[in-house]
Amino acid sequence: MELKPIGRIHSPFTQAAGTPIQPRFAFGSNGHCEVFPEYADGLRDLAGFERIWLLFWCHRAAAASLSVIPYRDTVERGLFATRAPARPNPIGLSCVRLVGIEGNMLHIAEIDVLNESLLLDIKPYVPEYDSYAVERTGWIGERGLNIAAADGRFQQEA
Amino acid sequence: MELKPIGRIHSPFTQAAGTPIQPRFAFGSNGHCEVFPEYADGLRDLAGFERIWLLFWCHRAAAASLSVIPYRDTVERGLFATRAPARPNPIGLSCVRLVGIEGNMLHIAEIDVLNESLLLDIKPYVPEYDSYAVERTGWIGERGLNIAAADGRFQQEA
Repeated sequence: MELKPIGRIHSPFTQAAGTPIQPRFAFGSNGHCEVFPEYADGLRDLAGFERIWLLFWCHRAAAASLSVIPYRDTVERGLFATRAPARPNPIGLSCVRLVGIEGNMLHIAEIDVLNESLLLDIKPYVPEYDSYAVERTGWIGERGLNIAAADGRFQQEA
Repeated sequence: MELKPIGRIHSPFTQAAGTPIQPRFAFGSNGHCEVFPEYADGLRDLAGFERIWLLFWCHRAAAASLSVIPYRDTVERGLFATRAPARPNPIGLSCVRLVGIEGNMLHIAEIDVLNESLLLDIKPYVPEYDSYAVERTGWIGERGLNIAAADGRFQQEA
């Protein structure tokens, strides 16, 4: 299971502190994805999709802990019940808005990713596959605080 | 960027042919995820969520091609505009229904994953983060065929 970067993400966010915790809270934050030239042919037909999933490596994430206080709560929660970036496999998953494509460059809006993150995969966002109405959303539904931006708690020491 | 499996997925599907192409088409397909004991503490609080994302390694996927004929079309599309499993980083992403948790075992419904796939991550499904109404869904919206099950086209030769 070896990963190879397919590109690099460029965003205004150079530190976790102040970075939107999800694209939902990233209105007005724009960036771009540089897809390495050898993968550019795989971008054909992508421009027809309004949103895309970015899978990326959380290169600045601290070592994983199985119990974390997530941004939107004040008590510890099991790591896998949170979206904290410090995970055994620190793979980030963000549903961003695709504004346009020029060659191997994707212009992105509503980006919540740290600058210089390595891109692992791009998948089209398909509501039929990805959008579910659910009744139960655990601690987030019951207690979720109104927090939109990260602090440094899951970031590696510099 | 080294991946370590956090568990193993058990499903009724031992071959790509006949496997649902997405959880949306997997009604009645049940399986389970065995989370390795050293990660079990990270499952606390997860049972409150109705659906979860599974990230897993598509261990049977063929080598990536940047142009593929996806299941739901008859012409070639850029790989990143499809959800085909044969990708530079063959990371599968499935939004499955979490039926219950017993110790380190997750009982799953609506599963579309091949048996014995290695589990990389579990994230809670949060509609606020993951569910977007979009207007444009590219070739899938324009031409998507009514196909619910895979064939062997993206599977490694045995």
